[in-house]
Amino acid sequence: MKFALLSGLVIACLASIGNASAANDLASFHSKNQGGCTACHITPGKVSDDSETHINQQCKSCHGGYEELKDAKLEIDPHNSHLGDINCTSCHKGHEQSKVYCNECHSFDLKIPFNDAKKKAAWDAKWDQEKIQQAIAKGPVETTEVVVVGAGSAGYNAAIAAKQAGAKVILFEKAPFSGGNSMLAAGGMNAVGTPQQKAHHVEDKVQWFVEDTMKGGRYANDPKLVDILAQRSAEGVKWLESLGVNMDDLKRSGGARVDRTHRPADGRSAGPTIIQTLRKAAAKFDVETRLNSRVEKLVLNDDRQIVGVVVHAKYSGYYMVAAKSVVLTTGGYGYNKEMIAYYRPTFKDMTSSNNITATGDGITLAKEIGASMTDIDWIQAHPTVGMDSRILISETVRGVGAIMVNAKGQRFISELTTRDRASDAILKQPGKFAWLVFDNQLYKKAKMVRGYDHLGMLKKADTIDGLAKLTNMDTQLLQGTVTNYNQYQQSGDDKAFHREDMPLNLTQPPYYAVKVAPGIHHTMGGVAIDTKAEVLDLQSWPIKGLFAAGEVTGGVHGYNRLGGNAIADTVVFGKIAGESAAANAQQK
Amino acid sequence: MKFALLSGLVIACLASIGNASAANDLASFHSKNQGGCTACHITPGKVSDDSETHINQQCKSCHGGYEELKDAKLEIDPHNSHLGDINCTSCHKGHEQSKVYCNECHSFDLKIPFNDAKKKAAWDAKWDQEKIQQAIAKGPVETTEVVVVGAGSAGYNAAIAAKQAGAKVILFEKAPFSGGNSMLAAGGMNAVGTPQQKAHHVEDKVQWFVEDTMKGGRYANDPKLVDILAQRSAEGVKWLESLGVNMDDLKRSGGARVDRTHRPADGRSAGPTIIQTLRKAAAKFDVETRLNSRVEKLVLNDDRQIVGVVVHAKYSGYYMVAAKSVVLTTGGYGYNKEMIAYYRPTFKDMTSSNNITATGDGITLAKEIGASMTDIDWIQAHPTVGMDSRILISETVRGVGAIMVNAKGQRFISELTTRDRASDAILKQPGKFAWLVFDNQLYKKAKMVRGYDHLGMLKKADTIDGLAKLTNMDTQLLQGTVTNYNQYQQSGDDKAFHREDMPLNLTQPPYYAVKVAPGIHHTMGGVAIDTKAEVLDLQSWPIKGLFAAGEVTGGVHGYNRLGGNAIADTVVFGKIAGESAAANAQQK
Repeated sequence: MKFALLSGLVIACLASIGNASAANDLASFHSKNQGGCTACHITPGKVSDDSETHINQQCKSCHGGYEELKDAKLEIDPHNSHLGDINCTSCHKGHEQSKVYCNECHSFDLKIPFNDAKKKAAWDAKWDQEKIQQAIAKGPVETTEVVVVGAGSAGYNAAIAAKQAGAKVILFEKAPFSGGNSMLAAGGMNAVGTPQQKAHHVEDKVQWFVEDTMKGGRYANDPKLVDILAQRSAEGVKWLESLGVNMDDLKRSGGARVDRTHRPADGRSAGPTIIQTLRKAAAKFDVETRLNSRVEKLVLNDDRQIVGVVVHAKYSGYYMVAAKSVVLTTGGYGYNKEMIAYYRPTFKDMTSSNNITATGDGITLAKEIGASMTDIDWIQAHPTVGMDSRILISETVRGVGAIMVNAKGQRFISELTTRDRASDAILKQPGKFAWLVFDNQLYKKAKMVRGYDHLGMLKKADTIDGLAKLTNMDTQLLQGTVTNYNQYQQSGDDKAFHREDMPLNLTQPPYYAVKVAPGIHHTMGGVAIDTKAEVLDLQSWPIKGLFAAGEVTGGVHGYNRLGGNAIADTVVFGKIAGESAAANAQQK
Repeated sequence: MKFALLSGLVIACLASIGNASAANDLASFHSKNQGGCTACHITPGKVSDDSETHINQQCKSCHGGYEELKDAKLEIDPHNSHLGDINCTSCHKGHEQSKVYCNECHSFDLKIPFNDAKKKAAWDAKWDQEKIQQAIAKGPVETTEVVVVGAGSAGYNAAIAAKQAGAKVILFEKAPFSGGNSMLAAGGMNAVGTPQQKAHHVEDKVQWFVEDTMKGGRYANDPKLVDILAQRSAEGVKWLESLGVNMDDLKRSGGARVDRTHRPADGRSAGPTIIQTLRKAAAKFDVETRLNSRVEKLVLNDDRQIVGVVVHAKYSGYYMVAAKSVVLTTGGYGYNKEMIAYYRPTFKDMTSSNNITATGDGITLAKEIGASMTDIDWIQAHPTVGMDSRILISETVRGVGAIMVNAKGQRFISELTTRDRASDAILKQPGKFAWLVFDNQLYKKAKMVRGYDHLGMLKKADTIDGLAKLTNMDTQLLQGTVTNYNQYQQSGDDKAFHREDMPLNLTQPPYYAVKVAPGIHHTMGGVAIDTKAEVLDLQSWPIKGLFAAGEVTGGVHGYNRLGGNAIADTVVFGKIAGESAAANAQQK
């Protein structure tokens, strides 16, 4: 069906054509050239809805899918992105200015049709308390068993687990695409006792995982949660594999004593790979997913038990859904400048590696109903965010072998130290930045580096001297640094900074450097949970029906998270939260 | 010297008389009737200064001291208050409307002369960042070794300890009188292994004190800090006694397994007694104390070490003081509505038992320079704040023997449970309030109750039936409650709620009741410190030169403080902070 012809909207539509003919926007263009409003709008009496595929289907019925839209001539092709098969309307707006969503994080020089149309106020510009109360007063318009709020890795894992446990589930995501911060995860998932570790002859123990995580978190972690994270990590990898993710590569992340970070074997970034698979798995298991749909209120009864949520959706407006269980998987607040400024004012001007969706909604929702928080003001800066950009340079780059030097070309700390110590060390260097330096061996081994190259972030030279010149380092100092490091690497003893693992030397040109500085990366604190992922109230007793997992929670990572533990957290506790939510909803 | 005659201010003064003659304020009255501006202003070229006694001296030189001003005919005499010998200008304003400071907390029907004069903007209405920066740019106008910020119990103990260790000390207090929240402490100070416990044949152990405190704090406390609190508590009592405080009474507080709370033997509230003694001790030891002086900035050098503070004073304006050590003893944020609303929105409409000075200044100062916080958003509600007032009904009332009943007259929880559980239980009762009920035995034993009576807070009747009628309780239910309780008390076994300690029955008329509801009482979280009271940065490393003690810190009390542990905290850690600060300042 190329063009559905319907009558419901005809009058409004004709009027709109009349007005729109002057407007240079996508809707006017389509209605003029493709036979009216029904070119896009297929449901009578309704502009659109917020299901994941509705709008895409209509667009694709004419234009074909993303595969067909790929343009090999483009250096940066927005239809071939880590965001995957997202809503077409994320960028292409009907009645207002179209814009390249990629540029919320990047600064690509991309052209999009109808980028000079009129701007409109964002549908989600405010939380309208009056409309929320009206939706509650009206009562639920639909009933489900489990509501999951936020479709990142934790949300997908929770929703799929709840669905597999037999519960009726709706997964809400406020953005026009799913993925959240998880989609930006470059590294991988820490796990102990996996077949992968066995295949790589890595000796590891649950207790080591626990100790490394507690040490990294400065022992502020909740030991009960860390135990579960470690104990169930191998099961988590297996579960991801059962959903279709390949996790066969293994590497070391900062703060870990052995190779424990599981990654896709094809060298791709872990986050997009996992999210794309989870998206497909959710569809396969019939998890109902609604995009452009922000949950703006948790509704309690007089006994302070969860009875539902109020949703504010782009097309469907405000409505209440009744549910016995709600799982908060909304992520952290690393992109909420107001919360950062309040909780940690010294970080307020720092860049953020986070998805623009990381605005702490779940924390706000839970605080409002008297949930307790753990270490709410603890924020992790990632030491290596691309200078003057928001692109995170993965820990993997250091893990696989890069060294880190200051503006003069000198190393100043073990590259594998914890994130907070590395960030602090960089901020004490001249100019408050550093360079990651590596050679062609690493370029070939770590596929993500080609991505940074593609984004124009790398300096490249055929000699160390040449690289020093390109980056304004002191040639002699950088030469000395590299010579010394190659000796340490050969002897296995880093005499300067006691780096524990040096997989590569720097001997094969071309040489590369990427300029980095600390940026806000992970908000450590959040909603307090117990071992069943139940959210706790101010008496530290569970709030009946409320669960949470992932970055929205506090306690798992203490004051500082280790690389590879975020995905582990979202998988292990996402699954637990989904199972607990299903069990609660199905309780007699 | 009744009237000092000086020339410095003559011209300004004459002009002011000219203008002021129309104004009905204290300054106009004095300048007209007492011979000019010099009636009050004694320093040439300077309006006044902010030393504790300067203004008082001038007022008292004519009017006599507070003792002479007492008026036996007044039911409430503001010159005979728990605030003690405070600045006369706290209430009597020269060039603006005078007002009864007592009514910041109470609602007394008191008359004050010149209460119809013009209002002026408060001198401390804002933190002027520009003036702060100007003061830093100008450089220090004086140098000391130790600055102590905030003159409550922690501040006085720190200042006196630093002074006794040989350091030069200035103690700054933003209010026109010292005392802070400590002055409102009714209960006492927990300590283990004191001569008092021995005299009362109380068996107690450091380990029990630690366990009770950790259990009360839901094990979120920093065990290292709790150990010190318990271990040095007896030494703390001894130290207070050495400064002149009598602490010979002993009672049980909620959450403690034995009688451990030390109080003045004369039955007076502990806080005012301790503060008045500390005030005198500070004067005796020549601790320089400045009132009306708010510290608005901690100044660091490039190595992030403390080098001083910027003070904003009512009369002296903005100025920088150089100091190697600064001790934050500014108290909590229990009277800062904005902070409460942000950190714990469900508490935002709750009344507060706190002094109006408890605005979290120290937390703001420390956050600004990158100090880390412990459990910053944890707030303790006190279960028994006088309903519709801000007067706290001390835990002692329950400790000494009162029972707690709901609107119908039924008990609903052990009266000696922890504060958070008691608060939560009250909020679940009809009307969200409770009554404390007791008889004449308690009235005679707990002197503070006479204070509540004096403030008109008690209902009083000769029979239980009469009391039920006065308070709208169900007569039969209240009768039953009292009869049962008296039986439990006699047998030593509270069959209803397992109350551990029942010192009194309810048999001797008249009977009393006071209506209570939960109010914000203590902010548990705050600046992170180590065992030397050093403030920690975001790497959990000490910030050189910065110390803190008392309610401004987090970690000692976990998620919930036990009654009697606040004064213990201020004394033990106040003293440690003062000693650490002196040692740091005197380090070569």
